[in-house]
Amino acid sequence: MSLMQPFAAQLQFQNGLLEPYGRKTVRRLSDMRGMYLDISATEELLKQGDPLLYEVYEVDVPHEEGQLIYCTSIIYPGQVGHEYHMTKGHFHSKEGTAEIYFGLRGRGYLLTQTHDGQVSVIEIVPGTVAYIPPFWAHRTVNIGDEKFVFFAVYPGDAGHNYGIIEEGGFAKLVVEKNGKPAVVDNPRYR
Amino acid sequence: MSLMQPFAAQLQFQNGLLEPYGRKTVRRLSDMRGMYLDISATEELLKQGDPLLYEVYEVDVPHEEGQLIYCTSIIYPGQVGHEYHMTKGHFHSKEGTAEIYFGLRGRGYLLTQTHDGQVSVIEIVPGTVAYIPPFWAHRTVNIGDEKFVFFAVYPGDAGHNYGIIEEGGFAKLVVEKNGKPAVVDNPRYR
Repeated sequence: MSLMQPFAAQLQFQNGLLEPYGRKTVRRLSDMRGMYLDISATEELLKQGDPLLYEVYEVDVPHEEGQLIYCTSIIYPGQVGHEYHMTKGHFHSKEGTAEIYFGLRGRGYLLTQTHDGQVSVIEIVPGTVAYIPPFWAHRTVNIGDEKFVFFAVYPGDAGHNYGIIEEGGFAKLVVEKNGKPAVVDNPRYR
Repeated sequence: MSLMQPFAAQLQFQNGLLEPYGRKTVRRLSDMRGMYLDISATEELLKQGDPLLYEVYEVDVPHEEGQLIYCTSIIYPGQVGHEYHMTKGHFHSKEGTAEIYFGLRGRGYLLTQTHDGQVSVIEIVPGTVAYIPPFWAHRTVNIGDEKFVFFAVYPGDAGHNYGIIEEGGFAKLVVEKNGKPAVVDNPRYR
């Protein structure tokens, strides 16, 4: 049997860069059309130049059972309407798999929810290790005014199911209210 | 179905303390009798007070498939004879499972080996994310003069098999030579 060899990547705590990385995902607002509540704010921002919302650096590991995928995510500060910049959010394709988030820089919320309507919000600051148990969809939100950087690990066979969230959204939104983050109901959630 | 709830622990980057934790493992030299090459140095240190070699803080997560176990390890600086302080080292019981180590403080070596005699050494400094692929036994060694602290994640059903290493040892030793760490053959390896 030809075995995979041990290897290492170097992570910069301050900016989340992980080198060498295998794949970089870049999400701009145009990749998330319709996911923020305020459609007219979205269209206005798109006219002004399609802002960069977040980037993910993923290291090259086989997406197979027994392996562990790891990546760093950098969510840039900003808002679309009153909503803070956030990731698309997803369930795992294999829903019975967990995920770990490890805060490195800035300040964010981890929003999680289940199919049967349970919701949880956890604040992540540097050093927070948040645990997303099996069966919970997850989205992260930058509630600060600098980059929100975190490290994530999930099982190699977890996969991503974005469709359910693209279709129905998250039950809660994170918006700025009187200069502070507030978690409110999403009127469009179904 | 009653689902496990999302939760968080807070990690202190400088000392590796993870709170709240579910289990703390403390290894003193008496727990590793016979694992260092120099038996007389071992016995001499035991007479002087059984030094603390390392501690592991593990968060409380079910040891089941789909879950992810995570912990921080703190290896204290020092030597037994010429060998630097190290962990016991192990294969996973379910050998086809990976592990991730994330360096937080200090400087260490990750020693890995396979049943068929392959060996690898990776240096870990703060920000190094080392990947231990399925089927590799792993041990960490503090090669610096301060605490070596790292964060680890592995699949919930991986388990630990310490017996093979307790019996046969690691193929390589990490010793101080002219004030620097050197990786040398273990004369007692079988």
